[in-house]
Amino acid sequence: MNLTTLEDITAAAERVADAVVHTPLLATTWADAHRPLWLKPESLQPIGAFKIRGAANAIARIPAAARPRGVVAYSSGNHAQAVAYVAKRFGLPAVIVVPENTPAVKIEATRAHGAEVVVVPITDREIVAERLVAERGATLIPPFDHPDVIAGQGTIGLEIVADLPDVEVVLVPVSGGGLAAGVATAVKALRPSAQVYGVEPALAGDAAESLAAGRLVRWSEQDRARTIADGLRAQPSELTFAHLQKLLDGIVTVTEDEIRAAVATLATRANLVAEPSGAVTTAAYLHRAADLPAGRTVAIVSGGNLDPADLAAMIGA
Amino acid sequence: MNLTTLEDITAAAERVADAVVHTPLLATTWADAHRPLWLKPESLQPIGAFKIRGAANAIARIPAAARPRGVVAYSSGNHAQAVAYVAKRFGLPAVIVVPENTPAVKIEATRAHGAEVVVVPITDREIVAERLVAERGATLIPPFDHPDVIAGQGTIGLEIVADLPDVEVVLVPVSGGGLAAGVATAVKALRPSAQVYGVEPALAGDAAESLAAGRLVRWSEQDRARTIADGLRAQPSELTFAHLQKLLDGIVTVTEDEIRAAVATLATRANLVAEPSGAVTTAAYLHRAADLPAGRTVAIVSGGNLDPADLAAMIGA
Repeated sequence: MNLTTLEDITAAAERVADAVVHTPLLATTWADAHRPLWLKPESLQPIGAFKIRGAANAIARIPAAARPRGVVAYSSGNHAQAVAYVAKRFGLPAVIVVPENTPAVKIEATRAHGAEVVVVPITDREIVAERLVAERGATLIPPFDHPDVIAGQGTIGLEIVADLPDVEVVLVPVSGGGLAAGVATAVKALRPSAQVYGVEPALAGDAAESLAAGRLVRWSEQDRARTIADGLRAQPSELTFAHLQKLLDGIVTVTEDEIRAAVATLATRANLVAEPSGAVTTAAYLHRAADLPAGRTVAIVSGGNLDPADLAAMIGA
Repeated sequence: MNLTTLEDITAAAERVADAVVHTPLLATTWADAHRPLWLKPESLQPIGAFKIRGAANAIARIPAAARPRGVVAYSSGNHAQAVAYVAKRFGLPAVIVVPENTPAVKIEATRAHGAEVVVVPITDREIVAERLVAERGATLIPPFDHPDVIAGQGTIGLEIVADLPDVEVVLVPVSGGGLAAGVATAVKALRPSAQVYGVEPALAGDAAESLAAGRLVRWSEQDRARTIADGLRAQPSELTFAHLQKLLDGIVTVTEDEIRAAVATLATRANLVAEPSGAVTTAAYLHRAADLPAGRTVAIVSGGNLDPADLAAMIGA
């Protein structure tokens, strides 16, 4: 299997530069002295999540002849908005296939970026997306299982090492594994001594179990849906898992209460609105010190899109 | 009266580079088409507010011989933490004089940066600070009425023009006027066609009235204390007002409800926790379009330190 390389990621960085924010590393004032903490707030990207990077790289790679036929994505979350936003920026039509249970506010946000939204029963998402691709000659933009998407997410790793050359520990959320695969590729290539740890909710800890078992262990969609971290309910593909096996130094899991508390900590001590999926790395930093190496640590805050009432409840608790 | 120059600000930028974050300009996806909006989130500085810039420049300018005698500041707000944080970074002792009614959490935060905190009746703040300066030979770091502080805050203006060279409108909160003076100096020097507007709460609109009158009009402390934007209750000095008169294209005021709504907008649509003082520029963008020029607009989000319960209430409302 061909894994993503540093060269793939540096090429991606040029392609996505205009569409994405080079997010700053934010020094925290409340970290342990022997493991200072910086936050990498991907929650500040235009659509509020890192997904814009992979989408921008994948869309930028579409040949000119295929562009007028547009792109298709199926997602109810940040990937949908990322594809819609980037397609609009690049001047391509976009169709987003969303399941029936998607909140109206998310459908509106996707439409606001100019995308056509097709609502289908949840089990039909892939089939409908593939039919649209076949009918229109459009290009499917997958959420993680694609080399161009992995390379795009990896640009976060380039920025981390550029801005903190002596980084020692990087904490990255794991769901489908595209973000962790890309970030670990970049960080390990540029600074082999740095350790890269994945973080999962314990309630969706399939990647942790898979790494321990040495093979992909599948959890049911129902089991993975238990976590409030709705961006971390996917599971790695063969491609992303091959990266994780080769590159990650470990995966730690965090509890639902730890995730909620980390959302509050980020809001009140770092002035960042993070969604539960984006707060898992901070939760791991705060509650899994014994399982993580000491040293200069970067926690990737992967996104910030959550329901305002949920945010208010977590802050006020 | 000598006004701050672009050269003062570029010199300040070198001095403060290690202590402050070069905050990104965040493109918003929810702006009017004819006046796209970028946010400048100074709320992401280590102590959660722009005040770190002026403090860092002023402290960096203290002669080596005077450094062991340390610094003194009087403030119950972001300036206190900024001076404490920067003094610790530069290895100087710091004494912060705070009024009796200061919340314990703010006193703890200032102590956590290693500063000595002296609690006094509110009317004694200046006297006690000046006595400490005389007794210890320490250097007073004023919150705004000082050329080095103005120049430090002005580094925000340098970053705005560097990151968005064709900026057309800059919105900046006005309280003591140090931030607005510094930013307007930098922006007008580098891009004379850009318009710089101050923003105040209507309930603390003394600078707006002063500009209209062509002279400093004083409001009572009691009147200015009515706004929830507790960082905007100060009033300009002769020095900062001279800058505002020369450089600002205007000042607009916003209501308390508009400020609260802007805090919610920033949290839910930009994933930024802003304090009311930091949200006034977004409030002006959203509610004073008729009084502001069109064009590419930057709103400075000056800080993000507020009580979690207040934040939860504004988001949940």
